[in-house]
Amino acid sequence: METKYSVPETSTHTTTNMIKVSADSRTSAVAGAIAGVIRDHRHAEVQAIGAGAVNQAVKALVLATGYLKLDGINVTCTPEFADVTIDDKVRTAIKLIIDPQ
Amino acid sequence: METKYSVPETSTHTTTNMIKVSADSRTSAVAGAIAGVIRDHRHAEVQAIGAGAVNQAVKALVLATGYLKLDGINVTCTPEFADVTIDDKVRTAIKLIIDPQ
Repeated sequence: METKYSVPETSTHTTTNMIKVSADSRTSAVAGAIAGVIRDHRHAEVQAIGAGAVNQAVKALVLATGYLKLDGINVTCTPEFADVTIDDKVRTAIKLIIDPQ
Repeated sequence: METKYSVPETSTHTTTNMIKVSADSRTSAVAGAIAGVIRDHRHAEVQAIGAGAVNQAVKALVLATGYLKLDGINVTCTPEFADVTIDDKVRTAIKLIIDPQ
């Protein structure tokens, strides 16, 4: 499973809290990561490449939304395309931008 | 492609504007449907079953978000699970609930 927190980098937000999801990622693990990043930073980004990864990311977001609701945090999501270079090839990723309402 | 508007039914909203997406749905057509329903009703729901369909739904939502931004409408999405009965079998669908911010 590929679920990692990127190192802080320059962006419109003070830190980028990027969670990378693959088709093999466990939804509960990704959901826990999303909920943790939202609790700590009030902003999370989930990146997925390919249908299987996008599906896992969305399912994890459903679970995370439930966890966070128990903490009184209602999150919404805005999806975006993002170009990602992997092994010198440019691929289009889906980025789910998650913020409290 | 299966993109249809359901008949109004009893729900928490006055009408249900459900857009059903399959793995074969054209993203631009689904995006147009989402944008149209949001413009008319300020609320839309997209239903997808399976990884391919969820991927198409999310990609369509990215496009629709862009179309609607041009109209000054910023939408966000909350995903949910939904049990759907098809041919007497219960399947778990992903429902993307789309509302203006």
